[in-house]
Amino acid sequence: MKKIAIIGKGNVGIHLERALKGVNIEPTLIDSRSLDGLSGDFDLILICVSDTAISQIAHRIAEKIGQVSSVVAHTSGSVSIEAIKNHFKKCGVVYPLQTFSKTMEIKDYSEIPFFIEGNTEQTEKILKLIASLISDNVFVLDSKNRKKLHLASVFACNFVNALYCIGEDLLKECNIPFEILRPIIMTTAEKVISSTPKNCQTGPAKRRDEEILTQHLKMLADKKELREIYRLLSEYIIAKTKNE
Amino acid sequence: MKKIAIIGKGNVGIHLERALKGVNIEPTLIDSRSLDGLSGDFDLILICVSDTAISQIAHRIAEKIGQVSSVVAHTSGSVSIEAIKNHFKKCGVVYPLQTFSKTMEIKDYSEIPFFIEGNTEQTEKILKLIASLISDNVFVLDSKNRKKLHLASVFACNFVNALYCIGEDLLKECNIPFEILRPIIMTTAEKVISSTPKNCQTGPAKRRDEEILTQHLKMLADKKELREIYRLLSEYIIAKTKNE
Repeated sequence: MKKIAIIGKGNVGIHLERALKGVNIEPTLIDSRSLDGLSGDFDLILICVSDTAISQIAHRIAEKIGQVSSVVAHTSGSVSIEAIKNHFKKCGVVYPLQTFSKTMEIKDYSEIPFFIEGNTEQTEKILKLIASLISDNVFVLDSKNRKKLHLASVFACNFVNALYCIGEDLLKECNIPFEILRPIIMTTAEKVISSTPKNCQTGPAKRRDEEILTQHLKMLADKKELREIYRLLSEYIIAKTKNE
Repeated sequence: MKKIAIIGKGNVGIHLERALKGVNIEPTLIDSRSLDGLSGDFDLILICVSDTAISQIAHRIAEKIGQVSSVVAHTSGSVSIEAIKNHFKKCGVVYPLQTFSKTMEIKDYSEIPFFIEGNTEQTEKILKLIASLISDNVFVLDSKNRKKLHLASVFACNFVNALYCIGEDLLKECNIPFEILRPIIMTTAEKVISSTPKNCQTGPAKRRDEEILTQHLKMLADKKELREIYRLLSEYIIAKTKNE
């Protein structure tokens, strides 16, 4: 069995631990501040710290364990392999495309797409093999395209959640609880599982309903930022669905 | 059993027909152009046409059937009860908060929140009763607040889908199929079913990761509108999650 160390006990670290345990691998969870328990004995060292800390932690790992045979990989979408490349002979990236929260259970880790990059073909092979133990969807992707993928996921995940927040804010004004939106939120997500987003588009912008668009912009008159978000997203929808 | 007519064979009409059939009511689906088959014999006439057509169709219904005992209700979130009030003695609104597509099956209509408004208490009671046959979540809401609710749902549904589209657009550039985003899309929706949107927020803006935010804005340098959407939604998240 592979000896795996996970550095960082944040959302990603905790979930990769659970995912590995699910396939009968018992990883060692290591505190990123102390690095207590870290040695060159691990086959794989997974860096699960915030993007800004990756380069520095790589430096500290290298100082602590030296040039060893371990493969060291970070798990970030937006950080290049270059951030750790100078410190290790074998290094790479294992990027799981999912939004992790400690309290949110993930039922099936095998569905999560994993994106792999290695500094050599051999390293890539090792990382691919380990990711394949967890996931049925493992792909090789270089740093440049991984950054684009991460940007796409910021729109489809982080910004989507921000829109849920905005929905909640607007409902507060008429004393309606956020729960009311849950069925429509689930259906909106479920729809694009079986169709394309373009085919699923509905609403006043899609219908070019100028009266409603104007009415909504008026209702947001005292909320400059939301008004601007409304305008830009409506214009995007109109451009996207033209010639239909 | 209630005799119900549904005017309009669009997404809402088709789904209300299915929902009523599900509770053993066989409504009559009526073409909105011809109004063939419409008479004063119906207990309830549901107007399921586009927002801009509601006022005109109400006029045509009144011309065709006169002042009868039927309750006439439209089904729009953003159109006031005023649009049909002058034409009928008993009228109101039955607004199902859901995104309907003809091809998308709705498993459980009883989960859909219905918002009711009536021109009199008696009409409101009738409409509430009929909506309660379909749904376990029926609320009375006036036109002004219904408009706010609809606006909230444009953000949480129509604009969310637009963000899925943007995700797809960005992935096309690195030849990654949209399917890759589906697990993260489902988890993002599922998360807010058991928590609040604010608690679910993740991503670079939430983490105040200035490096990634700058990198993403640079990547969108040649996409002015997306860059602006990125900036505004990130600023919203930063403001929303401050003092944490």
